Amino acid sequence: MDMDVKNLLLAVKRGDMTVEQAEEKLKTQPFIDMGFAKIDAHRPLRQGVNEVIYGEGKTAKEIETIVKKMLSIGQNKILVTRLSAEKASAIEGVKDFVYHERARIATIGGNYSIKSSGTIVVASGGTSDFPVAEEAAITAEFLGNRVERLYDVGVAGLHRLLNNLQPLMNASVVIAVAGMEGALASVIGGLVDCPIIAVPTSVGYGANFEGLSALLAMLNSCASGVGVVNVDNGFGAGFLASRINQPKTKEN
Amino acid sequence: MDMDVKNLLLAVKRGDMTVEQAEEKLKTQPFIDMGFAKIDAHRPLRQGVNEVIYGEGKTAKEIETIVKKMLSIGQNKILVTRLSAEKASAIEGVKDFVYHERARIATIGGNYSIKSSGTIVVASGGTSDFPVAEEAAITAEFLGNRVERLYDVGVAGLHRLLNNLQPLMNASVVIAVAGMEGALASVIGGLVDCPIIAVPTSVGYGANFEGLSALLAMLNSCASGVGVVNVDNGFGAGFLASRINQPKTKEN
Amino acid sequence: MDMDVKNLLLAVKRGDMTVEQAEEKLKTQPFIDMGFAKIDAHRPLRQGVNEVIYGEGKTAKEIETIVKKMLSIGQNKILVTRLSAEKASAIEGVKDFVYHERARIATIGGNYSIKSSGTIVVASGGTSDFPVAEEAAITAEFLGNRVERLYDVGVAGLHRLLNNLQPLMNASVVIAVAGMEGALASVIGGLVDCPIIAVPTSVGYGANFEGLSALLAMLNSCASGVGVVNVDNGFGAGFLASRINQPKTKEN
Amino acid sequence: MDMDVKNLLLAVKRGDMTVEQAEEKLKTQPFIDMGFAKIDAHRPLRQGVNEVIYGEGKTAKEIETIVKKMLSIGQNKILVTRLSAEKASAIEGVKDFVYHERARIATIGGNYSIKSSGTIVVASGGTSDFPVAEEAAITAEFLGNRVERLYDVGVAGLHRLLNNLQPLMNASVVIAVAGMEGALASVIGGLVDCPIIAVPTSVGYGANFEGLSALLAMLNSCASGVGVVNVDNGFGAGFLASRINQPKTKEN
Amino acid sequence: MDMDVKNLLLAVKRGDMTVEQAEEKLKTQPFIDMGFAKIDAHRPLRQGVNEVIYGEGKTAKEIETIVKKMLSIGQNKILVTRLSAEKASAIEGVKDFVYHERARIATIGGNYSIKSSGTIVVASGGTSDFPVAEEAAITAEFLGNRVERLYDVGVAGLHRLLNNLQPLMNASVVIAVAGMEGALASVIGGLVDCPIIAVPTSVGYGANFEGLSALLAMLNSCASGVGVVNVDNGFGAGFLASRINQPKTKEN
Amino acid sequence: MDMDVKNLLLAVKRGDMTVEQAEEKLKTQPFIDMGFAKIDAHRPLRQGVNEVIYGEGKTAKEIETIVKKMLSIGQNKILVTRLSAEKASAIEGVKDFVYHERARIATIGGNYSIKSSGTIVVASGGTSDFPVAEEAAITAEFLGNRVERLYDVGVAGLHRLLNNLQPLMNASVVIAVAGMEGALASVIGGLVDCPIIAVPTSVGYGANFEGLSALLAMLNSCASGVGVVNVDNGFGAGFLASRINQPKTKEN
Amino acid sequence: MDMDVKNLLLAVKRGDMTVEQAEEKLKTQPFIDMGFAKIDAHRPLRQGVNEVIYGEGKTAKEIETIVKKMLSIGQNKILVTRLSAEKASAIEGVKDFVYHERARIATIGGNYSIKSSGTIVVASGGTSDFPVAEEAAITAEFLGNRVERLYDVGVAGLHRLLNNLQPLMNASVVIAVAGMEGALASVIGGLVDCPIIAVPTSVGYGANFEGLSALLAMLNSCASGVGVVNVDNGFGAGFLASRINQPKTKEN
Amino acid sequence: MDMDVKNLLLAVKRGDMTVEQAEEKLKTQPFIDMGFAKIDAHRPLRQGVNEVIYGEGKTAKEIETIVKKMLSIGQNKILVTRLSAEKASAIEGVKDFVYHERARIATIGGNYSIKSSGTIVVASGGTSDFPVAEEAAITAEFLGNRVERLYDVGVAGLHRLLNNLQPLMNASVVIAVAGMEGALASVIGGLVDCPIIAVPTSVGYGANFEGLSALLAMLNSCASGVGVVNVDNGFGAGFLASRINQPKTKEN
Repeated sequence: MDMDVKNLLLAVKRGDMTVEQAEEKLKTQPFIDMGFAKIDAHRPLRQGVNEVIYGEGKTAKEIETIVKKMLSIGQNKILVTRLSAEKASAIEGVKDFVYHERARIATIGGNYSIKSSGTIVVASGGTSDFPVAEEAAITAEFLGNRVERLYDVGVAGLHRLLNNLQPLMNASVVIAVAGMEGALASVIGGLVDCPIIAVPTSVGYGANFEGLSALLAMLNSCASGVGVVNVDNGFGAGFLASRINQPKTKEN
Repeated sequence: MDMDVKNLLLAVKRGDMTVEQAEEKLKTQPFIDMGFAKIDAHRPLRQGVNEVIYGEGKTAKEIETIVKKMLSIGQNKILVTRLSAEKASAIEGVKDFVYHERARIATIGGNYSIKSSGTIVVASGGTSDFPVAEEAAITAEFLGNRVERLYDVGVAGLHRLLNNLQPLMNASVVIAVAGMEGALASVIGGLVDCPIIAVPTSVGYGANFEGLSALLAMLNSCASGVGVVNVDNGFGAGFLASRINQPKTKEN
Repeated sequence: MDMDVKNLLLAVKRGDMTVEQAEEKLKTQPFIDMGFAKIDAHRPLRQGVNEVIYGEGKTAKEIETIVKKMLSIGQNKILVTRLSAEKASAIEGVKDFVYHERARIATIGGNYSIKSSGTIVVASGGTSDFPVAEEAAITAEFLGNRVERLYDVGVAGLHRLLNNLQPLMNASVVIAVAGMEGALASVIGGLVDCPIIAVPTSVGYGANFEGLSALLAMLNSCASGVGVVNVDNGFGAGFLASRINQPKTKEN
Repeated sequence: MDMDVKNLLLAVKRGDMTVEQAEEKLKTQPFIDMGFAKIDAHRPLRQGVNEVIYGEGKTAKEIETIVKKMLSIGQNKILVTRLSAEKASAIEGVKDFVYHERARIATIGGNYSIKSSGTIVVASGGTSDFPVAEEAAITAEFLGNRVERLYDVGVAGLHRLLNNLQPLMNASVVIAVAGMEGALASVIGGLVDCPIIAVPTSVGYGANFEGLSALLAMLNSCASGVGVVNVDNGFGAGFLASRINQPKTKEN
Repeated sequence: MDMDVKNLLLAVKRGDMTVEQAEEKLKTQPFIDMGFAKIDAHRPLRQGVNEVIYGEGKTAKEIETIVKKMLSIGQNKILVTRLSAEKASAIEGVKDFVYHERARIATIGGNYSIKSSGTIVVASGGTSDFPVAEEAAITAEFLGNRVERLYDVGVAGLHRLLNNLQPLMNASVVIAVAGMEGALASVIGGLVDCPIIAVPTSVGYGANFEGLSALLAMLNSCASGVGVVNVDNGFGAGFLASRINQPKTKEN
Repeated sequence: MDMDVKNLLLAVKRGDMTVEQAEEKLKTQPFIDMGFAKIDAHRPLRQGVNEVIYGEGKTAKEIETIVKKMLSIGQNKILVTRLSAEKASAIEGVKDFVYHERARIATIGGNYSIKSSGTIVVASGGTSDFPVAEEAAITAEFLGNRVERLYDVGVAGLHRLLNNLQPLMNASVVIAVAGMEGALASVIGGLVDCPIIAVPTSVGYGANFEGLSALLAMLNSCASGVGVVNVDNGFGAGFLASRINQPKTKEN
Repeated sequence: MDMDVKNLLLAVKRGDMTVEQAEEKLKTQPFIDMGFAKIDAHRPLRQGVNEVIYGEGKTAKEIETIVKKMLSIGQNKILVTRLSAEKASAIEGVKDFVYHERARIATIGGNYSIKSSGTIVVASGGTSDFPVAEEAAITAEFLGNRVERLYDVGVAGLHRLLNNLQPLMNASVVIAVAGMEGALASVIGGLVDCPIIAVPTSVGYGANFEGLSALLAMLNSCASGVGVVNVDNGFGAGFLASRINQPKTKEN
Repeated sequence: MDMDVKNLLLAVKRGDMTVEQAEEKLKTQPFIDMGFAKIDAHRPLRQGVNEVIYGEGKTAKEIETIVKKMLSIGQNKILVTRLSAEKASAIEGVKDFVYHERARIATIGGNYSIKSSGTIVVASGGTSDFPVAEEAAITAEFLGNRVERLYDVGVAGLHRLLNNLQPLMNASVVIAVAGMEGALASVIGGLVDCPIIAVPTSVGYGANFEGLSALLAMLNSCASGVGVVNVDNGFGAGFLASRINQPKTKEN
């Protein structure tokens, strides 16, 4: 897991480093243990972005503490997801803290700068899918992507979608957010030639079983090129879309 | 349940009928008991068509016996569903017996004559939905309806559907047959203004769970005007579509 | 999708319309984009009725705004479903606003005029199915249908149903609303010869699994001629019944 | 568990039995250990009937061995359930062996003599429920009950049931066997005033999920007085019905 | 459905009754229509006891109205189930109204007199099953049965059960109430020789899925003679047990 | 079930005990019947520890009463699980009562003394699994075990786990607590050679279905040596781990 | 949907095209209707690759006919998935037909040339996942991608994975194929910084429910950047990975 | 993961090992890559026993190859599970190959020598659970444990279990194998004070859903001290029981 084993070994051989120092080094925790949580200090190196804070199940105080610790070690762009308005307002003393109520997301330190020429289109089926779609859109923007929103284009009124083909055709990734029967992903899948991230939402009633209907529909999409994330997981879709939109540069 | 109670009572009063005869009459079984089955002899009066024979779970011999009994009481147009090719070929001595292998349906005595000026369109998503779609189409034809087939128009290639809007627009009922994510019903639902019967099929693989994905999708259709029948139940869809396409004439 | 392509092309040829105008025309959005929602402005033309507003997941303010926008473009008969009493009372300044509390439905501008000689019978199994049954009945009435209610006729007391055969026999469509074991649809299905829309309700306790028991029962009905809508979807049943009760007139 | 502890203790006190003998007695196994199975030798005393042999998962040889062992200890009326025709024909040298193919049951030594003045009615919904209904009927007959069969009286043709009210009204127990939507139990439950045993069958197709639809429907029956057994468990229903039909005589 | 058709016909013949009167008679509703509900006026004749009022989903006012109507037509022993304490205290002006809080049941007019020499034993697995067990016990007592309670005898401490074999052995019916793994029904089933009604409860946590674990366990009981009612359905068990404990007397 | 039958019989023979006394003895209840509950008085003898009180579904008063009864018969180390903070604060007059809020556990009379040289490691995937992990840890400590906590070592940041291999390698039992995809159990299972108790938690959102995803994952672990307890059942894991960590000493 | 509407209109205006021709053009089907199937003739233009033939549910003859039709219109690189060995050997007269038995895939006309500098790594958990992994790998290769296989690196033996970090670190996309508890996707997800396509397989036994356990686990992955395809859908994963690995070049 | 990092570093410092050698060492694969599989060569060191071969989904040839490879590197005691009789007979040239048909297990090189003074009791509910119980028993014996079998002691005949308390009381681990309602685990759990491994089997019919009923029952056991393995996973139970029965000796 350690890319610098060789350098370390050379340093030991050269005597630049004692065996004890090397051993210590090899054992150093690449995270900060805060008792109730372990902050991944190497994440920026390993995966390009700081650890994201999942707000649910943590108190406002705990979130504030983690945020400040991260800021103190120089991780100054932070995303907090699933953050209720109540908790958000209880977090204090954090600069550049912006709260997006419908998406239940907070960003700290602003967005990363744009790292790709591509555009991520976030399309949603109905007005009730708005919060999940926004969670995806804001996540993608935070991570340094151009985002175009295309909301309320569900398949029951197909012309709304067909009148917006241009942005879909130009997208480098499409995030399709839909509840109920989740057909949006399949219909878009038949129109575009870029990767599609499908996000089932728990919107609906009766036998939608908390999003199961849309989830199964999207997994069974007759269109190719569709990957599915968990029900209501806007963040996951935004994150994955960003990775696709920002391909690593290979040197070899 | 008996519409003629009054006439019966009048006949008793008039003495045209003895109490015993009347009592007998009121108790007469409107079905023929064959031991292993009871043939509904009043069905044509009550519901306009003869009883349909569900072929699964009956031997060829049993089916043949029932068919001949029905013919003997003057029920001369008969539909047998879910009839395997093997059983079909074992049934003997029945005139005007026509077997449709892919649909696994046999008709006896030909189709009812056309009773409606409307057309039932049977649309299907993919080539694998063919048998279920045919079961629906042949059932509807048997019951005296004009049927137009529109197969392999799944949403993954939307133009195949959009190039066939005319028949859809003119339909009095549309039967939408689809497996996988079952989006066809929703997309058609957003385009037409007639009733839609959605038939989920068990076509697909992985997490389609024997048609559950399409079933849930269709029940959760974001388009209005969609009624759903059981998985793979082409017959049920054809039958319901026929009832819709042949409204009763009210005299009062 | 556009029925007037030919006329348009002729106008261009004739010089009555510039290429730019035609192009514009072909691209015009048949909906009004309100940011959080897109109102389907062509729905009345395409499907005969205005778009229905689904109240759940929208604020009272949003609903009010959409309603007023629709009124402003001449869509003056509006249906709002799944509208809580609280939201209903917060909507202001809308004329002819009538709220049906048990059905959680509001109608604006009164009902459409009766468009069919047929009658839709709404039958329900028990007193607890009342709200869903009313949602179906009021929807059907709004859409211009004669409706007859037949409530609390569940199969556990069969005589209640058998004493009301007349309206069932005369119906052009029956909506059967039932929870628990959902047997009502099958029993009615064996008695009548018109289409039946079955609405499973989430009424019941124990292993009814939020209406799953009634849903599965209705999908598996041994009677033919039954189409099923989603659990508790009274609106969907009323809408579909209306479409069946108001067949399109064909000219060709 | 032992009703004779007192007598045993008295015998020890009296010296009629040694401590060792008593200890032995208290430890004696009330079953015969055959290695692969343990025959319950006390069952006739404890529960009035011999142990029933469940044929599935046992070889013909094993069944034959158990049967002969039971006969050898004087248990001469034996029931074998879920016995395939193939296995049945491979069992040899057992007197009074009668095989019922459709019910997949064998009886040995004839039926118990009638022990009750009541009648058990076995009603079934459709012809495909026949094997399960027969399993119930033959089990009840074996255990010494009068049985009346009322087959193919499903609710889709209600008059078939209503024309057979007399036996239902006179029954001391009704066994209602039905697949698909399982409505038969509810409808009968609303008509009679005796206990009803409901047996869901796996008959049906599409979303009946191996009998789940009928099972849930029966558990959720809106009629009171219904107890449910496992899917296709005709034997269990026949056994329970027999217990109800043969109440123990209390002396105190 | 009418047992007196013959007498009626004779009266018409004799002229004691006009055709119109007879027709009217045959059409008379054997229930009282209250708009929101239909009271079954013939239930006492048909099934021996008055209709039971299911309190959930009805307002206190509605319940009070139904109760008073029933009292007014001479139905003076009434059971109300699933009645919250709040509603119970809001019902006024009803004499002999007794409320059992833990069982959420009210009885009006006292219990029916004891109609059977048998005893119904209600056994429960744990203290948390108490409300469901009481619902069963009070229902059975109301219907005129001797009831013996045997609570907290779950199989994890088998001696608690084995120390109470006497009442179990003497029971004419046992109601086994248990949540979690629902093993109580099987263990009792192996010990007694009377019918057992198993009631799964939703008690438990984790993967008990609202009582599904106990429900499936009881349906799959390896002991014979067990009938299952719906999850938490204490009333249903008490009602069925009463029917078993009070066999009809046959005259023929 | 009684190990002293022989001694008892000898005493009867010797005349040291009357038959009546012996009979009484054999019938004595090894539990204290408190009406709403039966305290298992022999549990310490039979299973080494006192009965544990499950707090859910019991009132504070009932818990207090049971606790005091147990103390009165000399059971002075008591564990109460699933005890809300509110109930905990309402329990009065109990000495050495310690409440652990996050784990919702109270201990009375302190922990049992350490009975094993082994260590139980409680590892958890994320911060949200904390309460369940603590329930396991405190239970194990109460029962006399050394416990080491290893929290927030989920597989998404594998180095957090790999940096803590030492305690895992030295454990005599590992309790792996994880929600979401529950992969922790498998990964640890591939690293250690001691028994692993896997506890799925209901932590997660979307299609985790109340812990089902983690439960299925753990049951399907590709690593050997893993036993699973119910969702969120920290107590059960701690109890089982204790039994494993404290093997009985065999004398023969 | 048509990008050339303007040109078309201009041609009409100029008189280069008659109104009828233009109308015809606008209506031309971009597919070839073969009765039982419609070949998407525009797919290469719209989505860059020819339509893929799903072999299941089609006869060898049908597949052969479609393939030859496609070849005849110049679509000379074809992929057939889910093709049994038996059918494969029955297809005749097709040049450059290569069959991959374990993956049940046939390629015709060789692979597309490599279109990306990136590498797709296909990692699988166990030897039984081989066929699904190969389906993914061969699909990706067919579509013009460099593929590196990393099989049998399941998490139960973590070192097998950790010893292969280099290719994972260098991948532009990783396809993680795993059955049982599906933990592989999460573990890889914590190590790499490229998009991951997770493919649950139906490998496993007991409560894996045909791949449901792995499917839920992957959807609930605690690692970010994971998109899931249907159970056993190796083709879907390979196709999506290819789209990610071959980003479109944007000119504007 | 490497316990000898220090020694390695010291060797480098001392010059006993070149940097390249050390680097190589750190990268050496602790497994043998056979293309289609990777044999875990370090498993005996890490986990005390050789890797077990899961026979399902591998050809006889593949199994033979793996076995011979393992033998060639000195792993001479091998277990093959889920091995059909057909495959077993096709494996050739392997010495000390013993096949257990009912358990579908082969052992090679005999069992490990007994490593513990404790006894593992394998108890099963019915005769049909035999194969799973044997899989557990033979696995445990192979791994060097004393095993005592207690078969056909299901709770429906409780005395069969109560007559065998002695071995249960003396066990160091009990494996409880049961299908249907799976009550055996709970009943044993209330009697013994050692760890219990519960194995649900798919034995049963109707709504047992492939072992789900027993699985849920065992997870919800009201007895403490029970860990559950997957449905029919006798091997997993035997393996876990062995780990519990052979506690590691700690030196520190």
